[in-house]
Amino acid sequence: MTDDIRLCRTFQTAPAAVPKDDTAKYLVSALEAEGFQAPDWLVPDLEDGTAPDMKAEGLENTVEKVPKYDFPGEIWPRVEWSYEDEEYREKGREQIDRLVDEVGDEIDGVVVPKVGRLEDVERAAAAVAEAEREHGHPDGSIGLSIIVETGRARSDLREISKFGEDSRLTALIFGPVDYAAELGGRDLGDGMPRWDGLLEALSNEASAGGLLSIGGPFDDLFKERAGLTFYNADEYAEQVEHEAQLGLDGSWSLYPKQTIQANTIHMPTPDELERDVHKIERFNEAKREGTGAVTIDGQMVDEATFKNFRNTIQTVRVIHDRRPDQTEERYDGDLLGRALELELSYR
Amino acid sequence: MTDDIRLCRTFQTAPAAVPKDDTAKYLVSALEAEGFQAPDWLVPDLEDGTAPDMKAEGLENTVEKVPKYDFPGEIWPRVEWSYEDEEYREKGREQIDRLVDEVGDEIDGVVVPKVGRLEDVERAAAAVAEAEREHGHPDGSIGLSIIVETGRARSDLREISKFGEDSRLTALIFGPVDYAAELGGRDLGDGMPRWDGLLEALSNEASAGGLLSIGGPFDDLFKERAGLTFYNADEYAEQVEHEAQLGLDGSWSLYPKQTIQANTIHMPTPDELERDVHKIERFNEAKREGTGAVTIDGQMVDEATFKNFRNTIQTVRVIHDRRPDQTEERYDGDLLGRALELELSYR
Amino acid sequence: MTDDIRLCRTFQTAPAAVPKDDTAKYLVSALEAEGFQAPDWLVPDLEDGTAPDMKAEGLENTVEKVPKYDFPGEIWPRVEWSYEDEEYREKGREQIDRLVDEVGDEIDGVVVPKVGRLEDVERAAAAVAEAEREHGHPDGSIGLSIIVETGRARSDLREISKFGEDSRLTALIFGPVDYAAELGGRDLGDGMPRWDGLLEALSNEASAGGLLSIGGPFDDLFKERAGLTFYNADEYAEQVEHEAQLGLDGSWSLYPKQTIQANTIHMPTPDELERDVHKIERFNEAKREGTGAVTIDGQMVDEATFKNFRNTIQTVRVIHDRRPDQTEERYDGDLLGRALELELSYR
Repeated sequence: MTDDIRLCRTFQTAPAAVPKDDTAKYLVSALEAEGFQAPDWLVPDLEDGTAPDMKAEGLENTVEKVPKYDFPGEIWPRVEWSYEDEEYREKGREQIDRLVDEVGDEIDGVVVPKVGRLEDVERAAAAVAEAEREHGHPDGSIGLSIIVETGRARSDLREISKFGEDSRLTALIFGPVDYAAELGGRDLGDGMPRWDGLLEALSNEASAGGLLSIGGPFDDLFKERAGLTFYNADEYAEQVEHEAQLGLDGSWSLYPKQTIQANTIHMPTPDELERDVHKIERFNEAKREGTGAVTIDGQMVDEATFKNFRNTIQTVRVIHDRRPDQTEERYDGDLLGRALELELSYR
Repeated sequence: MTDDIRLCRTFQTAPAAVPKDDTAKYLVSALEAEGFQAPDWLVPDLEDGTAPDMKAEGLENTVEKVPKYDFPGEIWPRVEWSYEDEEYREKGREQIDRLVDEVGDEIDGVVVPKVGRLEDVERAAAAVAEAEREHGHPDGSIGLSIIVETGRARSDLREISKFGEDSRLTALIFGPVDYAAELGGRDLGDGMPRWDGLLEALSNEASAGGLLSIGGPFDDLFKERAGLTFYNADEYAEQVEHEAQLGLDGSWSLYPKQTIQANTIHMPTPDELERDVHKIERFNEAKREGTGAVTIDGQMVDEATFKNFRNTIQTVRVIHDRRPDQTEERYDGDLLGRALELELSYR
Repeated sequence: MTDDIRLCRTFQTAPAAVPKDDTAKYLVSALEAEGFQAPDWLVPDLEDGTAPDMKAEGLENTVEKVPKYDFPGEIWPRVEWSYEDEEYREKGREQIDRLVDEVGDEIDGVVVPKVGRLEDVERAAAAVAEAEREHGHPDGSIGLSIIVETGRARSDLREISKFGEDSRLTALIFGPVDYAAELGGRDLGDGMPRWDGLLEALSNEASAGGLLSIGGPFDDLFKERAGLTFYNADEYAEQVEHEAQLGLDGSWSLYPKQTIQANTIHMPTPDELERDVHKIERFNEAKREGTGAVTIDGQMVDEATFKNFRNTIQTVRVIHDRRPDQTEERYDGDLLGRALELELSYR
């Protein structure tokens, strides 16, 4: 029952080529990641993460390295694109064509940035469909995810979501840096805006269209205090927790430590799991006694409340289906067993 | 002039049947409420407030009890429905048909939960229209209000509001628990999100479509401190005040004490009324002297500012029209008299 | 390259007629403003700022005074209008006709308040087009800006933005006082809502449609403490900074001191300019070395990050183009010179 549920707690971009002796160093390192350091989605980045003069080499690295590793999650290369520049779209089409041709069986889809209004998203979908046909892959087998980072894409989010109900569109990912640049947002000492309205809309429209919603990157990777530079774990965790609270399905990671954190936060805590397993167990008992709105520990539980508890259990089941190493590491065996066996129907 | 203005400061749901010796206990208790404990809208709840195996009895209780009481507000039963399940919609249609048939003269409309996109709202409206025709009630005499609690309904809120401009649609009510479950929102220690974007949109679209907007239920009815369990008056009041600030017309109540609080908060305070009566009295004086943007107590007053003062007076007049017991209890007789006699035209 | 970029850091309304011996006193005083006291847009106000019985005199003042001054910014009279009242629209059409006839070469456009849904905005645009044709001005030479202050306009903001992509529509200005009155917002002690969702949408839709976005007026001009009444500089600055952070292009001013503040805040600080000039200078160096995502001072810089730095420089260039007195007063000559000469292309 969890087979058709998409999982993307972590959307980790890795530059497809870097100016080092081994230009595929970061890509390979991400492909080799294990346990909580392995993201649900690995995104070989041919766009902003790779320098303009290394794009070609990034594409070679991607088609060469991806097939060599048995990566535990999904693979979604990010190509170039721009709603306002046909030259970028043409590059994007060539990159999509090459990827589908050479690693069409290994990738789950492509990520297209800087899309504009609905018509531009449809144009990106058509580019994927064309490559699919050209290289003999089944219709719909190569997914499309988009970065929402322009005023036009935000403006058309409802229409894009409706398009997503019945198309290859899979995930809506927020791109705050391009977005702030488009709108002219400014950091006047308290940082850039968090764009709460957009995040809430992203979560809603993804839900309405049956899509995944993913937050934007956090690039203050390190902070310095008293002479020491250290990984900025607190601020990243706060961003990811805010996204999880709003119902975003996952967060963007730029770095293995961020992946550990986002994988962890977008997974119920042992306390949450214990609490909601307990609630449903007590609910199931009360149900046998025929009560509708029952009070458990002072809180009224009706079908709607019940669904929130059930979400917790279902998320654990989906993660267990894909990454049993993570659920077995995180939860007590007895608790996990109860979560896997629980009866989840309200009626 | 206040005749056609709808009033719903309080939307109180009462389970239509509960597993007690007297299954109509809570429904009857709500129908008997007086003074500030009587909600503007009483909602006999056939949906989540009544257990699955007591729905039939809930419907019997509703058609039997409602006609027996001279309830001072409006009666809006909540039926079953779901945008994603025809079985629930069929139950909803049967419940609507039975209600309109037996108590069509006593109820003001029906509340339909879990609606999806515009098309589903139109489907619900058609079900009401059909029952109306079938049982010989005038076209449009039975209203429709909907619970906004799915990603799809939130996504289509503008289109639903436009439909509401010229249809039986009367109120948009927020359903946060189902909504959080749909979006996958999580409580990570600070509670569920308040969904500020949705609340603001609800207030706006209700205003644009000439509809009422109502906040969601607050179910932490009691809290415990130092061994004592007591009614959680502070937190509920804070939620209702937040809703009132944003221009929502009313709040959801689950309990008579909540009804007292929401009736009170969605009514101008004596200080607000004194302040705005005073401002308009001084404005009317200044108007006789021919000044446009006048300064009263350091604040510039133009037509727009004036409208805000007038809102206060008009709200009091509408409440006085429906529930004079409440206005007479709340305001000094002299102040109320000034409010009822004040000239309210800007020009 | 800055010629076609619109600049409106400050939208200052001035009553077109006041009940004083010299009824044009405030209008003339605004037309004579210099330096940071001169707004980018001066708005002779025939609507809420001028008393009902002085509208005719306000129109005379406007057509008489505007041509006499060489005002350094743009001139945008605000006329009367209402989506719900044909009488106001007819007055608005007459005012537009008279303004275009007599001062069509001196004004940049007209500001139309209280617009409703898209159809009403199109109706306002048609009124301007008609006056343009009637009096022989080139098509599109007289702009249209609208006050967003009704539930309907907020509801249709996406559609209005799309209309703005290819029409005379120039700016979206927020009108919070009428807006709060429409929605029934209330001040329960913490002031009126800030309408964060609307402000974020205004910034987004303006960006999507190539329009300017402007915040609403702040009318608590003065505060009193310990017997002294003084200009409320802090609270106005906080509102303007919030608007600037969200990417609004400008703020509404009611008073010369507010104009100084808004002109200043919607202009990069010397520190911001120094920082972003420095970042781009270092980026340009790194680019010569062929690196894509480079780290400068611990922050990763890709094309998107780069665009945010570039915004700062471009804003300074546009202001320098229109108001060199202000840039020369604000910035060190050496820093300004570096900003004007910097290479701004990412590739």
